[in-house]
Amino acid sequence: MAKKIIIDTDPGVDDTIAILTALRSPEVEVIGLTSVFGNVPGEIAAQNALRLVELEGHGDIPVARGSDVPLVFPLEKLGTWVHGEDGMGNTQPPAPKGKVVDKSAAEFIVEMAHAYPGEVTLVPVGPLTNIALALRIDPGIAALIKEVVIMGGAVANPGNMTPVAEANIYHDPHAADIVMAAGWPLVLVGLDVTHKTIITPEFQQMLFKAGNPAVELISKVLPCYQNFFNNLYGLNGAIYTHDPSAISYVINPDLFTTKDVPVFVETEGRCVGQTVADWAHQWEERTPVKVCLDVNSEGVLALLKERLTA
Amino acid sequence: MAKKIIIDTDPGVDDTIAILTALRSPEVEVIGLTSVFGNVPGEIAAQNALRLVELEGHGDIPVARGSDVPLVFPLEKLGTWVHGEDGMGNTQPPAPKGKVVDKSAAEFIVEMAHAYPGEVTLVPVGPLTNIALALRIDPGIAALIKEVVIMGGAVANPGNMTPVAEANIYHDPHAADIVMAAGWPLVLVGLDVTHKTIITPEFQQMLFKAGNPAVELISKVLPCYQNFFNNLYGLNGAIYTHDPSAISYVINPDLFTTKDVPVFVETEGRCVGQTVADWAHQWEERTPVKVCLDVNSEGVLALLKERLTA
Amino acid sequence: MAKKIIIDTDPGVDDTIAILTALRSPEVEVIGLTSVFGNVPGEIAAQNALRLVELEGHGDIPVARGSDVPLVFPLEKLGTWVHGEDGMGNTQPPAPKGKVVDKSAAEFIVEMAHAYPGEVTLVPVGPLTNIALALRIDPGIAALIKEVVIMGGAVANPGNMTPVAEANIYHDPHAADIVMAAGWPLVLVGLDVTHKTIITPEFQQMLFKAGNPAVELISKVLPCYQNFFNNLYGLNGAIYTHDPSAISYVINPDLFTTKDVPVFVETEGRCVGQTVADWAHQWEERTPVKVCLDVNSEGVLALLKERLTA
Amino acid sequence: MAKKIIIDTDPGVDDTIAILTALRSPEVEVIGLTSVFGNVPGEIAAQNALRLVELEGHGDIPVARGSDVPLVFPLEKLGTWVHGEDGMGNTQPPAPKGKVVDKSAAEFIVEMAHAYPGEVTLVPVGPLTNIALALRIDPGIAALIKEVVIMGGAVANPGNMTPVAEANIYHDPHAADIVMAAGWPLVLVGLDVTHKTIITPEFQQMLFKAGNPAVELISKVLPCYQNFFNNLYGLNGAIYTHDPSAISYVINPDLFTTKDVPVFVETEGRCVGQTVADWAHQWEERTPVKVCLDVNSEGVLALLKERLTA
Repeated sequence: MAKKIIIDTDPGVDDTIAILTALRSPEVEVIGLTSVFGNVPGEIAAQNALRLVELEGHGDIPVARGSDVPLVFPLEKLGTWVHGEDGMGNTQPPAPKGKVVDKSAAEFIVEMAHAYPGEVTLVPVGPLTNIALALRIDPGIAALIKEVVIMGGAVANPGNMTPVAEANIYHDPHAADIVMAAGWPLVLVGLDVTHKTIITPEFQQMLFKAGNPAVELISKVLPCYQNFFNNLYGLNGAIYTHDPSAISYVINPDLFTTKDVPVFVETEGRCVGQTVADWAHQWEERTPVKVCLDVNSEGVLALLKERLTA
Repeated sequence: MAKKIIIDTDPGVDDTIAILTALRSPEVEVIGLTSVFGNVPGEIAAQNALRLVELEGHGDIPVARGSDVPLVFPLEKLGTWVHGEDGMGNTQPPAPKGKVVDKSAAEFIVEMAHAYPGEVTLVPVGPLTNIALALRIDPGIAALIKEVVIMGGAVANPGNMTPVAEANIYHDPHAADIVMAAGWPLVLVGLDVTHKTIITPEFQQMLFKAGNPAVELISKVLPCYQNFFNNLYGLNGAIYTHDPSAISYVINPDLFTTKDVPVFVETEGRCVGQTVADWAHQWEERTPVKVCLDVNSEGVLALLKERLTA
Repeated sequence: MAKKIIIDTDPGVDDTIAILTALRSPEVEVIGLTSVFGNVPGEIAAQNALRLVELEGHGDIPVARGSDVPLVFPLEKLGTWVHGEDGMGNTQPPAPKGKVVDKSAAEFIVEMAHAYPGEVTLVPVGPLTNIALALRIDPGIAALIKEVVIMGGAVANPGNMTPVAEANIYHDPHAADIVMAAGWPLVLVGLDVTHKTIITPEFQQMLFKAGNPAVELISKVLPCYQNFFNNLYGLNGAIYTHDPSAISYVINPDLFTTKDVPVFVETEGRCVGQTVADWAHQWEERTPVKVCLDVNSEGVLALLKERLTA
Repeated sequence: MAKKIIIDTDPGVDDTIAILTALRSPEVEVIGLTSVFGNVPGEIAAQNALRLVELEGHGDIPVARGSDVPLVFPLEKLGTWVHGEDGMGNTQPPAPKGKVVDKSAAEFIVEMAHAYPGEVTLVPVGPLTNIALALRIDPGIAALIKEVVIMGGAVANPGNMTPVAEANIYHDPHAADIVMAAGWPLVLVGLDVTHKTIITPEFQQMLFKAGNPAVELISKVLPCYQNFFNNLYGLNGAIYTHDPSAISYVINPDLFTTKDVPVFVETEGRCVGQTVADWAHQWEERTPVKVCLDVNSEGVLALLKERLTA
């Protein structure tokens, strides 16, 4: 049976690849998208979420508008310099036809958790504000959600936002710590693995040849995102595979090597946004989460290729 | 027309006096109670809220269960040493008949704000967690709520929890700062005025003579609370008028002298929970709120007497 | 017998008035000046200290160079916009003849404390960095120093740097907290009293008529400082009496009303630099200090007039 | 020519091994020891420093008493549970004959820096309080000291005090950050290498056979320290080589692989005491320091054997 998933997302270029992959994978049933600020302002994230489901002919999938600001901190620089002002590589996509549902992201998540107890997998690939809000308005969902698969954090790898912090966690560290502490089944797909799977220009060209609407969109939105990776990492047109790695985990967890460890998020000082793995249990007790430490990158790439070129 | 109010509350002895006063006042229509941790655990707060509406024959007033923990900080010592383990002065009250509604406090507040745009006054007399959550799941309520009248804080008076922090704000400073920053009409009824209105033992006896169920309950639950004030302030059986002052403001704002000033809540360091009035506008811009600086205490006492002995 | 005093100073316009007053007062024997960053960079503070002792024919009084940066925080904006780039109201005073001694301010303080056990009064009128360093390199001085009379802080008055912080404390809150916690006899002459004693333009003119070198210097350096007070407080040419108040306390403590209370300095968050009086002993135990709460302003002004016009 | 070194130390069992190694090595001339709180209270550290120079017939080497408390934070748990109440494995060593010099550690360091400009290597193997104080009373020493070789920190390895913090840095993070930021030649010999060089029980027995006073003392003080490593790491009688690694670096830097990188120390939040290497220069500019990333452990062990069994 397909896994019911809700993707909490701030599309975003790699979000786009991830969402399209999910919508084209029989292993998962996308029962909703929820928007969050991050790569782009919350309003644009919601619009893009609508565009993506419509592109794949799934205009029936509900999109719920989520948070436009972090739980506690003031809103800082968004990721529009990476993903474009429109989150679509400055390609000025047409307006979506549909509308967001009349319910906040947090409320939508709570509702789905109760509607399908033990069946829903949350896949947050942006800041964790909506997930934390859902937990705070209804702590009971921790026992109802099947699994939370997060793109975010880094436990051995340096950060991409600061020397110690990955961007999704950095953008709302208080929310992230609430989510890490909730005691539910949780998987961290962080830079420790997403930096290991690289989509090269050759791979991109191979994808684009499929000529379907999905890869056509990807081919349009990618250049802006590539520039960022070129400038920061000198990747020569290649990109890291952040959000698509999280979706790959949901589809096939066997592609990843994980270890169980309690994870804490720093909310103060210079190291704000750091995800600390407490391997030796030196801090207070906290339910361990699964942290992805290694990945079968060829397997991930083969999966992406199969789904996106189908 | 009566003001529609939602009392967000952690009853609690002075909450009890405040709620009973509100239920017996024609100027206000209590359209709901929402529970929050604080004086007691959230579960007990919700039970007591049910008890209080039932005592006054208003079992139809919805009670929504709110947050059991602060937005960010771990739950610290509750106020059960002040209000009794049951929040009712350790009098072991009978179980309520009713049940909380199937909706969280934050969702209930959002729903009411939309149901009665421009009409609802929020009266939080506990930690501000629910109010902050409501703002975060729907920032639009800031433009829909008529007024927020908060029991909490202190701008000139020392704190009661620390040298600078009042208990309600101290218990969730992150939530409090979100609420102060929301730009909606807000009144702070803090220690600057609640310590000026004292309910003496003589006044209490006078109340109790009324013999109605409201004062009978108050007479039962008061001794535990009095002990606290005796021990800490040497008040010889008198009590300060925290939550009842907030309700008095809602009923008759003319009893209070206010000044408009931006208020910030400290969330870090020793001074955590301090409500700082930025009189000279030295910090970043923030919409001013009304801070109660003085009170017609005789007027407040006369009001309480009139309503509770009716 | 005259009190042996060391003035720790960042001259600075009001420092200048204070130092000249001290040098002209038989009740005190200035056994040294120590420089500190604050109103001006540390180097300029040291040069001005030399100038001031030389102006009064006391080139023999040793001047020790102290800290140019706070103990922990990076150096922020100095007070040159208030006191002039040269700390002398942009009057470009001539180079001093003398030199600083071959010893840091902290070492000089430690040496004097041991040379005159029980006799030395420290009078810090700038950030407390040197005093904290002296305590940290030799904690034994806490038992050797007669008294520490600080210009700084505010316990009821708002701050002048932020809504809660006075400038001297704000510039090095970590140092200030070390000094408050040292358990030695300490007096806080803060904004609670320095804002109560105002030197009006009329008083200034009266001083200037004396025509001695001291008031001639003051008449030159004052305009720049006045501008600051005009702009910020609308004082119309009047100035508050910060550092001269501290010297007045040293000369005649009876001019001030004090109360004993433990004082803590906030080192984190928004409220950094706040001096909190823990009236109800709610925080951990700390030896009380004397906080000046009221002042005989006429007495202070009469004292300043007598000394500066002599 | 032998390197002039000052060992800043809190002996301590591994300090003992390090100091004895240094005193027996012709490549270094120990021109002084300075004490600091850490493994033991400051007073005991100073006594042990005296004992160690006397044991090796170097009673003429000056020992200066340093700080008993961190720069800013209150004193927390010392390392006496690891090193014994007396820092000598609870072996109750006899009183030393000599006395500490009449000068604080910070002042001694400043004096030596000026006496031998460009010649003095500082080797701090405890909390960095004295070094930070020396820098603060005389920033000029940053240009006079030849090199600072620190045992402390970890940039890839987890911490030993918390998941992210090594004990020496954790005990005074503010001091450590001052030292890292000073812009002088600095080497960090941290857990990244000290955990790679293990002194096994067999190696210990081999050392003890030498029968000289140095190894006799080591054989007495070691059991207490071993217990700690057994309990925490299950090392079965082996110990990590913290302070001896720093001395080994001083004697023969070629045994270590280093990389230049700016290092920042977290002073707030959960991650307090973490030494963060800013590999990608994401934070503000700071002079890089040398961080030891790998070590020729056999070389270090051979060096220790040679010196201690001589």
